[in-house]
Parts: sequence; C-alpha cells; structure tokens
Amino acid sequence: MARNQQNELQALQDTLYFIGGKWRIPIINSICNGNKRFREIERSIPGITTRMLSKELKEMEMSKLVKRTVYADTPVLIEYEPTEHCRSFGKIIQEMIKWGESHRAIVLKKRT
Amino acid sequence: MARNQQNELQALQDTLYFIGGKWRIPIINSICNGNKRFREIERSIPGITTRMLSKELKEMEMSKLVKRTVYADTPVLIEYEPTEHCRSFGKIIQEMIKWGESHRAIVLKKRT
Repeated sequence: MARNQQNELQALQDTLYFIGGKWRIPIINSICNGNKRFREIERSIPGITTRMLSKELKEMEMSKLVKRTVYADTPVLIEYEPTEHCRSFGKIIQEMIKWGESHRAIVLKKRT
Repeated sequence: MARNQQNELQALQDTLYFIGGKWRIPIINSICNGNKRFREIERSIPGITTRMLSKELKEMEMSKLVKRTVYADTPVLIEYEPTEHCRSFGKIIQEMIKWGESHRAIVLKKRT
C-alpha cells in the first residue's frame, strides 16, 4: 500500500510537472476546443504572449501532444491539432472546468 | 461560442489557482486515500515540511475542503477528512495519475 502510494505520487508528479506553468492547460483546452491556427489559439487565451505560445507549442510538439501540419499554400497555412493523448487530457480539463464552476458556487454559498 | 470559451477559461483558471503550488494536489490525494492524522499525511508526501503542510491544511479547512475534528482525548487526537467537494476533486486526481502513467509509457515508447 505504501509502495503503491509512492508509485501513484510519482505518476501524479509527472502529470503536475507536465501541466506546470500558467499556460499549458489553457493551450491544451483551446486546441481540444477546435482552435487550429496560431492566431486563433492566441486570441482564445487572454494574456498569453506570442513568444510564450510559440515556445509552448514547440515543446508540446516534441512531447507528441500536438501535431503540426504545414500546408504549402500561399501564404503557408499551419495547423495545430491535438493527438489522442492530448485529447485524453482534454477530458480531464473539462472536469476541472466543471469542478471550478461548482467550487465557485460552494464558496459563494458558504460565505453568505 | 466565444463567450462560452471565456466562461470556461475563467472556471479553469479558478481551478488552476486553487490547485496552485506544489503541495495542494498531493495533499488532497493523500487525504482522499484515507490518511487522517497530520503525521500520516506528512509521511505520505516526501519532501513536504511540517510548516507547509500545516499552512495548507489551514487554508483547505477555510475553503471547506477539509474537515478538522478534534477529539478531546489525552493526548488530543486530531483528524482531517475530505469534504464531498474535496472527494470530487480526488476523482480528477485519480485520472491525472492514470494519465501520468500512460504519458510516461508513450514518451518512453516514442524515444526508443
């Protein structure tokens, strides 16, 4: 049991490390919501800088979370799409959103 | 649709703010796993300091995530238990653990 807790904690810390930072989760959420173009993703996340989004997308591509496709049009069209693995985290994010909404309701109720 | 994305992002940022910091999620996980005594919780989370755990538990009690019960024995027995609201987050954490395990498997596979 103690051993199991250790393994679980390790997997949890891996996940927390992965979603670390302010932007990773909002970016996954945006891409899983169907935003594909760099500017679309950027616009959907208030406060993110172009530089930061670019850096995050590169990292996510390396971790096989995002698939980047370049269409050789003029102008060149670049699309970002979530991998299956990324979508499975997207589902967790949806639950975090629901939880955040209910948390707000509970905290507001308790205060009145 | 844009409006809806904004609301969702707000709820998500509330959640991220709530789980912010290195220790909140491991503490919720530990308590949801049945650890009740301060020392039990402390031992289940390698690296946490007594001071930090104490601070976190106080905050979580104020946010109605943890119920603190004092039994007037000698010595005094204090137990921490998750509220229903906390348990619902515990379920999300379980999914994060599963995701972390599969993420590791995927990353290791891609590298070989």
